[in-house]
Amino acid sequence: MKQMEEKILREGEVLPGDILKVGSFLNQNIDTEFLGQMAREIARLFENERVTKILTIEASGIAIAAAAGMSMGVPVLFAKKHRTSNVDGSIYSSVVHSFTHNEDYNVVVSSDYLNANDRVLLVDDFLASGNALRGLIDLCDQAGATLVGMAVAVEKCFSGAGDEFRAQGIHVESLALIESMSEDGIVFRS
Amino acid sequence: MKQMEEKILREGEVLPGDILKVGSFLNQNIDTEFLGQMAREIARLFENERVTKILTIEASGIAIAAAAGMSMGVPVLFAKKHRTSNVDGSIYSSVVHSFTHNEDYNVVVSSDYLNANDRVLLVDDFLASGNALRGLIDLCDQAGATLVGMAVAVEKCFSGAGDEFRAQGIHVESLALIESMSEDGIVFRS
Repeated sequence: MKQMEEKILREGEVLPGDILKVGSFLNQNIDTEFLGQMAREIARLFENERVTKILTIEASGIAIAAAAGMSMGVPVLFAKKHRTSNVDGSIYSSVVHSFTHNEDYNVVVSSDYLNANDRVLLVDDFLASGNALRGLIDLCDQAGATLVGMAVAVEKCFSGAGDEFRAQGIHVESLALIESMSEDGIVFRS
Repeated sequence: MKQMEEKILREGEVLPGDILKVGSFLNQNIDTEFLGQMAREIARLFENERVTKILTIEASGIAIAAAAGMSMGVPVLFAKKHRTSNVDGSIYSSVVHSFTHNEDYNVVVSSDYLNANDRVLLVDDFLASGNALRGLIDLCDQAGATLVGMAVAVEKCFSGAGDEFRAQGIHVESLALIESMSEDGIVFRS
Protein backbone atom coordinates (compact mmCIF):
# COMPACT_ATOMS: atom_id res chain seq x y z
CA MET A 1 0.00 0.00 0.00
CA LYS A 2 1.81 3.03 -1.37
CA GLN A 3 0.30 5.49 1.13
CA MET A 4 1.57 3.39 4.04
CA GLU A 5 5.12 3.41 2.70
CA GLU A 6 4.95 7.15 2.17
CA LYS A 7 3.56 7.67 5.65
CA ILE A 8 6.34 5.61 7.19
CA LEU A 9 9.01 7.51 5.25
CA ARG A 10 7.49 10.86 6.21
CA GLU A 11 6.61 10.24 9.87
CA GLY A 12 8.35 7.03 10.99
CA GLU A 13 11.55 6.98 12.97
CA VAL A 14 14.01 4.11 13.32
CA LEU A 15 15.27 3.70 16.87
CA PRO A 16 18.00 1.41 18.20
CA GLY A 17 16.89 -2.20 18.75
CA ASP A 18 15.07 -2.53 15.43
CA ILE A 19 12.23 -0.35 16.67
CA LEU A 20 10.20 1.55 14.11
CA LYS A 21 8.41 4.37 15.88
CA VAL A 22 5.12 5.09 14.14
CA GLY A 23 3.30 6.46 17.15
CA SER A 24 2.48 9.68 15.32
CA PHE A 25 -0.12 7.95 13.14
CA LEU A 26 -0.46 4.23 13.84
CA ASN A 27 -0.16 2.97 17.35
CA GLN A 28 -0.36 5.80 19.80
CA ASN A 29 -1.70 8.91 18.11
CA ILE A 30 -3.99 7.45 15.46
CA ASP A 31 -4.58 9.28 12.18
CA THR A 32 -8.21 8.26 11.79
CA GLU A 33 -8.56 9.28 8.15
CA PHE A 34 -5.59 7.06 7.33
CA LEU A 35 -7.03 4.35 9.59
CA GLY A 36 -10.11 4.34 7.36
CA GLN A 37 -7.90 3.94 4.27
CA MET A 38 -6.05 1.01 5.86
CA ALA A 39 -9.34 -0.61 6.83
CA ARG A 40 -10.78 -0.34 3.32
CA GLU A 41 -7.60 -1.82 1.86
CA ILE A 42 -7.75 -4.79 4.26
CA ALA A 43 -11.43 -5.29 3.38
CA ARG A 44 -10.51 -5.28 -0.32
CA LEU A 45 -7.65 -7.75 0.13
CA PHE A 46 -9.86 -10.28 1.91
CA GLU A 47 -13.19 -9.58 0.22
CA ASN A 48 -13.48 -13.12 -1.19
CA GLU A 49 -12.58 -14.94 2.01
CA ARG A 50 -16.05 -14.94 3.64
CA VAL A 51 -14.56 -13.67 6.91
CA THR A 52 -16.97 -13.95 9.86
CA LYS A 53 -14.72 -12.54 12.56
CA ILE A 54 -11.60 -10.48 13.05
CA LEU A 55 -9.32 -11.50 15.90
CA THR A 56 -6.67 -9.18 17.31
CA ILE A 57 -4.77 -8.67 20.54
CA GLU A 58 -4.81 -5.76 22.95
CA ALA A 59 -3.81 -3.03 22.81
CA SER A 60 -2.28 -1.51 19.69
CA GLY A 61 -4.04 -3.88 17.29
CA ILE A 62 -7.51 -2.85 18.40
CA ALA A 63 -7.92 0.37 16.41
CA ILE A 64 -6.97 -1.12 13.05
CA ALA A 65 -8.97 -4.28 13.78
CA ALA A 66 -12.05 -2.25 14.76
CA ALA A 67 -11.79 -0.12 11.64
CA ALA A 68 -11.33 -3.19 9.43
CA GLY A 69 -14.30 -4.85 11.12
CA MET A 70 -16.46 -1.80 10.39
CA SER A 71 -15.35 -1.86 6.74
CA MET A 72 -15.99 -5.60 6.40
CA GLY A 73 -19.19 -5.68 8.46
CA VAL A 74 -17.92 -8.36 10.84
CA PRO A 75 -17.41 -8.41 14.62
CA VAL A 76 -13.98 -7.88 16.13
CA LEU A 77 -12.75 -10.00 19.00
CA PHE A 78 -9.69 -8.96 20.92
CA ALA A 79 -7.63 -11.34 23.00
CA LYS A 80 -6.69 -10.01 26.40
CA LYS A 81 -3.20 -10.33 27.76
CA HIS A 82 -4.22 -11.75 31.12
CA ARG A 83 -7.35 -13.17 32.62
CA THR A 84 -9.49 -10.41 34.09
CA SER A 85 -12.44 -10.55 36.44
CA ASN A 86 -14.98 -9.74 33.76
CA VAL A 87 -14.25 -12.77 31.60
CA ASP A 88 -16.04 -15.68 33.20
CA GLY A 89 -16.87 -19.13 31.91
CA SER A 90 -14.51 -21.17 29.84
CA ILE A 91 -11.66 -19.61 27.93
CA TYR A 92 -9.09 -20.35 25.29
CA SER A 93 -5.58 -19.40 26.33
CA SER A 94 -2.10 -19.48 24.84
CA VAL A 95 1.31 -18.41 26.15
CA VAL A 96 3.16 -15.74 24.17
CA HIS A 97 6.70 -14.49 24.64
CA SER A 98 7.16 -10.74 24.20
CA PHE A 99 10.58 -9.67 22.96
CA THR A 100 9.71 -6.02 23.61
CA HIS A 101 9.17 -6.60 27.31
CA ASN A 102 11.13 -9.86 27.61
CA GLU A 103 8.37 -11.72 29.40
CA ASP A 104 5.72 -14.37 28.83
CA TYR A 105 2.05 -13.55 29.01
CA ASN A 106 -1.23 -15.34 28.36
CA VAL A 107 -3.49 -14.35 25.48
CA VAL A 108 -7.04 -15.19 26.38
CA VAL A 109 -10.45 -15.12 24.73
CA SER A 110 -13.75 -16.36 26.04
CA SER A 111 -14.94 -19.50 24.29
CA ASP A 112 -18.33 -17.76 23.99
CA TYR A 113 -16.93 -15.56 21.22
CA LEU A 114 -14.98 -17.94 18.96
CA ASN A 115 -16.23 -21.22 17.57
CA ALA A 116 -15.87 -23.83 14.86
CA ASN A 117 -18.15 -21.94 12.45
CA ASP A 118 -15.89 -18.89 12.41
CA ARG A 119 -13.71 -17.93 9.48
CA VAL A 120 -11.13 -15.76 11.19
CA LEU A 121 -8.94 -12.97 9.88
CA LEU A 122 -6.12 -12.01 12.26
CA VAL A 123 -5.31 -8.29 12.30
CA ASP A 124 -2.48 -6.53 14.10
CA ASP A 125 -0.36 -3.42 13.76
CA PHE A 126 3.04 -5.16 13.50
CA LEU A 127 4.33 -8.50 12.29
CA ALA A 128 7.87 -9.04 13.54
CA SER A 129 8.68 -12.13 15.61
CA GLY A 130 5.18 -13.40 14.91
CA ASN A 131 4.79 -14.63 18.48
CA ALA A 132 1.56 -12.76 19.21
CA LEU A 133 0.05 -13.99 15.93
CA ARG A 134 1.13 -17.56 16.71
CA GLY A 135 -0.76 -17.22 19.98
CA LEU A 136 -3.86 -16.08 18.09
CA ILE A 137 -3.52 -19.00 15.64
CA ASP A 138 -3.39 -21.31 18.65
CA LEU A 139 -6.63 -19.77 19.98
CA CYS A 140 -8.30 -20.38 16.59
CA ASP A 141 -7.10 -23.99 16.61
CA GLN A 142 -8.48 -24.53 20.11
CA ALA A 143 -11.85 -23.18 18.94
CA GLY A 144 -11.80 -25.28 15.78
CA ALA A 145 -12.18 -22.05 13.78
CA THR A 146 -10.87 -21.66 10.23
CA LEU A 147 -7.95 -19.27 9.80
CA VAL A 148 -8.42 -17.41 6.52
CA GLY A 149 -5.37 -15.18 6.83
CA MET A 150 -3.68 -12.31 8.55
CA ALA A 151 -3.50 -8.60 7.78
CA VAL A 152 -0.95 -6.34 9.40
CA ALA A 153 -0.07 -2.72 8.95
CA VAL A 154 3.71 -3.15 8.99
CA GLU A 155 5.77 -6.29 8.47
CA LYS A 156 9.42 -6.43 9.44
CA CYS A 157 10.42 -8.92 6.74
CA PHE A 158 13.91 -9.29 8.21
CA SER A 159 12.40 -11.02 11.24
CA GLY A 160 11.34 -13.87 8.99
CA ALA A 161 8.02 -14.73 10.60
CA GLY A 162 5.85 -13.36 7.78
CA ASP A 163 7.56 -15.53 5.17
CA GLU A 164 7.41 -18.49 7.54
CA PHE A 165 3.63 -18.04 7.78
CA ARG A 166 3.40 -17.77 3.98
CA ALA A 167 5.43 -20.97 3.62
CA GLN A 168 2.80 -22.65 5.81
CA GLY A 169 0.17 -21.60 3.28
CA ILE A 170 -1.29 -18.76 5.32
CA HIS A 171 -2.61 -15.79 3.33
CA VAL A 172 -0.54 -12.93 4.76
CA GLU A 173 -1.10 -9.33 3.66
CA SER A 174 1.05 -6.50 4.98
CA LEU A 175 0.30 -2.89 4.07
CA ALA A 176 4.02 -2.12 4.22
CA LEU A 177 6.83 -4.67 4.00
CA ILE A 178 10.15 -3.51 5.42
CA GLU A 179 13.07 -5.46 4.00
CA SER A 180 15.66 -3.59 6.06
CA MET A 181 15.91 -0.48 8.15
CA SER A 182 18.47 1.60 9.99
CA GLU A 183 18.92 5.18 11.01
CA ASP A 184 20.13 5.77 7.46
CA GLY A 185 16.90 4.69 5.85
CA ILE A 186 14.18 2.16 5.23
CA VAL A 187 14.07 -0.29 2.31
CA PHE A 188 10.68 -1.71 1.36
CA ARG A 189 10.14 -5.04 -0.37
CA SER A 190 9.20 -4.35 -3.97
CA MET B 1 -29.22 6.28 23.58
CA LYS B 2 -32.17 3.93 23.37
CA GLN B 3 -30.34 1.28 21.33
CA MET B 4 -27.60 1.05 23.98
CA GLU B 5 -30.13 0.43 26.75
CA GLU B 6 -31.86 -2.21 24.65
CA LYS B 7 -28.53 -3.86 23.85
CA ILE B 8 -27.56 -3.97 27.53
CA LEU B 9 -30.93 -5.46 28.50
CA ARG B 10 -30.71 -8.05 25.73
CA GLU B 11 -27.04 -9.05 25.96
CA GLY B 12 -25.65 -7.66 29.23
CA GLU B 13 -25.18 -9.74 32.33
CA VAL B 14 -24.84 -8.51 35.90
CA LEU B 15 -22.17 -10.38 37.83
CA PRO B 16 -21.29 -10.21 41.55
CA GLY B 17 -19.12 -7.20 42.48
CA ASP B 18 -21.12 -4.65 40.47
CA ILE B 19 -19.71 -5.99 37.22
CA LEU B 20 -21.77 -5.52 34.08
CA LYS B 21 -20.57 -8.00 31.50
CA VAL B 22 -21.01 -6.55 28.01
CA GLY B 23 -18.22 -8.49 26.37
CA SER B 24 -20.58 -9.84 23.73
CA PHE B 25 -20.82 -6.47 21.97
CA LEU B 26 -18.78 -3.74 23.65
CA ASN B 27 -15.47 -4.59 25.19
CA GLN B 28 -14.30 -7.96 24.06
CA ASN B 29 -16.31 -9.13 21.07
CA ILE B 30 -17.16 -5.86 19.36
CA ASP B 31 -20.37 -5.49 17.35
CA THR B 32 -18.91 -3.19 14.70
CA GLU B 33 -22.25 -2.09 13.22
CA PHE B 34 -23.31 -0.96 16.68
CA LEU B 35 -19.87 0.58 17.20
CA GLY B 36 -20.55 2.80 14.20
CA GLN B 37 -23.89 3.86 15.70
CA MET B 38 -22.23 4.74 19.01
CA ALA B 39 -19.55 6.71 17.20
CA ARG B 40 -22.05 8.75 15.19
CA GLU B 41 -24.03 9.51 18.36
CA ILE B 42 -20.88 10.73 20.15
CA ALA B 43 -20.01 12.87 17.11
CA ARG B 44 -23.51 14.38 17.20
CA LEU B 45 -23.37 15.10 20.94
CA PHE B 46 -20.08 17.00 20.64
CA GLU B 47 -20.46 18.47 17.15
CA ASN B 48 -20.30 22.07 18.40
CA GLU B 49 -17.28 21.63 20.64
CA ARG B 50 -14.55 22.05 18.00
CA VAL B 51 -12.81 18.89 19.24
CA THR B 52 -9.26 18.52 17.89
CA LYS B 53 -8.33 15.25 19.59
CA ILE B 54 -9.88 12.26 21.30
CA LEU B 55 -7.97 10.86 24.27
CA THR B 56 -8.64 7.38 25.65
CA ILE B 57 -6.81 4.71 27.60
CA GLU B 58 -5.80 1.22 26.59
CA ALA B 59 -7.29 -1.24 26.05
CA SER B 60 -11.07 -1.43 26.03
CA GLY B 61 -11.58 2.27 25.26
CA ILE B 62 -9.63 2.12 22.00
CA ALA B 63 -12.31 0.68 19.69
CA ILE B 64 -15.00 3.20 20.61
CA ALA B 65 -12.49 6.05 20.62
CA ALA B 66 -11.17 5.05 17.18
CA ALA B 67 -14.69 4.80 15.76
CA ALA B 68 -15.66 8.17 17.27
CA GLY B 69 -12.47 9.72 15.88
CA MET B 70 -13.32 8.42 12.41
CA SER B 71 -16.83 9.88 12.69
CA MET B 72 -15.54 13.23 13.94
CA GLY B 73 -12.51 13.40 11.65
CA VAL B 74 -10.03 13.92 14.49
CA PRO B 75 -7.00 11.90 15.64
CA VAL B 76 -7.25 9.51 18.57
CA LEU B 77 -4.54 9.37 21.20
CA PHE B 78 -4.48 6.50 23.64
CA ALA B 79 -2.68 6.63 26.94
CA LYS B 80 -0.62 3.56 27.72
CA LYS B 81 -0.71 1.91 31.09
CA HIS B 82 3.06 1.77 31.57
CA ARG B 83 6.06 3.27 29.90
CA THR B 84 7.16 1.12 27.00
CA SER B 85 10.34 1.11 25.00
CA ASN B 86 8.79 2.69 21.92
CA VAL B 87 7.75 5.90 23.65
CA ASP B 88 10.82 8.05 23.91
CA GLY B 89 11.28 11.71 24.62
CA SER B 90 9.32 13.53 27.25
CA ILE B 91 6.03 12.22 28.52
CA TYR B 92 3.04 13.21 30.59
CA SER B 93 2.22 10.67 33.29
CA SER B 94 -0.38 10.23 36.01
CA VAL B 95 -0.97 7.54 38.62
CA VAL B 96 -4.33 5.74 38.51
CA HIS B 97 -5.75 3.25 40.98
CA SER B 98 -7.63 0.33 39.44
CA PHE B 99 -10.40 -1.11 41.60
CA THR B 100 -10.78 -4.04 39.19
CA HIS B 101 -7.22 -5.20 39.70
CA ASN B 102 -6.58 -3.44 43.04
CA GLU B 103 -3.32 -1.88 41.92
CA ASP B 104 -1.85 1.44 40.87
CA TYR B 105 -0.55 2.00 37.37
CA ASN B 106 0.79 4.91 35.36
CA VAL B 107 -1.10 6.34 32.42
CA VAL B 108 1.34 7.82 29.97
CA VAL B 109 1.24 9.79 26.74
CA SER B 110 4.08 11.30 24.79
CA SER B 111 4.17 15.07 25.01
CA ASP B 112 4.63 15.04 21.21
CA TYR B 113 0.95 14.18 20.80
CA LEU B 114 -0.89 16.47 23.22
CA ASN B 115 -0.43 20.20 23.52
CA ALA B 116 -1.94 23.51 24.62
CA ASN B 117 -3.74 23.99 21.29
CA ASP B 118 -5.75 20.79 21.70
CA ARG B 119 -9.45 20.70 22.54
CA VAL B 120 -9.76 17.22 23.97
CA LEU B 121 -12.73 14.86 24.21
CA LEU B 122 -12.15 11.93 26.57
CA VAL B 123 -13.74 8.67 25.43
CA ASP B 124 -13.97 5.38 27.30
CA ASP B 125 -16.19 2.33 27.51
CA PHE B 126 -17.12 2.62 31.20
CA LEU B 127 -17.47 5.44 33.73
CA ALA B 128 -17.60 4.00 37.23
CA SER B 129 -15.04 5.14 39.83
CA GLY B 130 -13.81 7.72 37.35
CA ASN B 131 -10.19 7.07 38.28
CA ALA B 132 -8.98 6.37 34.74
CA LEU B 133 -10.72 9.50 33.47
CA ARG B 134 -9.22 11.58 36.30
CA GLY B 135 -5.83 10.36 35.13
CA LEU B 136 -6.63 11.49 31.58
CA ILE B 137 -7.80 14.90 32.86
CA ASP B 138 -4.48 15.21 34.67
CA LEU B 139 -2.62 14.47 31.40
CA CYS B 140 -4.65 17.21 29.65
CA ASP B 141 -3.83 19.65 32.47
CA GLN B 142 -0.12 18.84 32.20
CA ALA B 143 -0.26 19.54 28.47
CA GLY B 144 -2.24 22.76 28.97
CA ALA B 145 -4.93 21.32 26.68
CA THR B 146 -8.60 22.28 26.93
CA LEU B 147 -10.94 19.56 28.15
CA VAL B 148 -14.20 19.86 26.23
CA GLY B 149 -15.93 16.88 27.78
CA MET B 150 -16.14 13.14 28.11
CA ALA B 151 -18.18 10.52 26.30
CA VAL B 152 -18.61 7.01 27.64
CA ALA B 153 -20.63 4.04 26.51
CA VAL B 154 -21.92 3.03 29.94
CA GLU B 155 -22.05 5.05 33.16
CA LYS B 156 -22.61 3.39 36.50
CA CYS B 157 -24.41 6.35 38.08
CA PHE B 158 -24.39 4.69 41.50
CA SER B 159 -20.61 5.08 41.62
CA GLY B 160 -21.09 8.85 41.73
CA ALA B 161 -18.12 9.90 39.62
CA GLY B 162 -20.16 10.98 36.59
CA ASP B 163 -22.28 13.38 38.64
CA GLU B 164 -19.14 14.60 40.40
CA PHE B 165 -17.61 15.48 37.01
CA ARG B 166 -20.86 17.22 35.98
CA ALA B 167 -20.82 19.23 39.23
CA GLN B 168 -17.33 20.40 38.22
CA GLY B 169 -18.83 21.75 35.00
CA ILE B 170 -17.53 19.01 32.73
CA HIS B 171 -19.75 18.11 29.77
CA VAL B 172 -20.36 14.39 30.38
CA GLU B 173 -22.35 12.28 27.93
CA SER B 174 -23.09 8.62 28.59
CA LEU B 175 -24.85 6.48 26.01
CA ALA B 176 -26.46 4.47 28.81
CA LEU B 177 -26.82 5.60 32.43
CA ILE B 178 -27.34 2.81 34.93
CA GLU B 179 -28.99 4.02 38.13
CA SER B 180 -28.91 0.62 39.79
CA MET B 181 -28.34 -3.00 38.84
CA SER B 182 -28.51 -6.46 40.34
CA GLU B 183 -29.08 -9.97 39.12
CA ASP B 184 -32.80 -9.12 39.21
CA GLY B 185 -32.53 -6.32 36.71
CA ILE B 186 -31.08 -3.03 35.53
CA VAL B 187 -32.65 0.39 36.13
CA PHE B 188 -31.63 3.20 33.75
CA ARG B 189 -31.72 6.89 34.63
CA SER B 190 -34.67 8.43 32.83
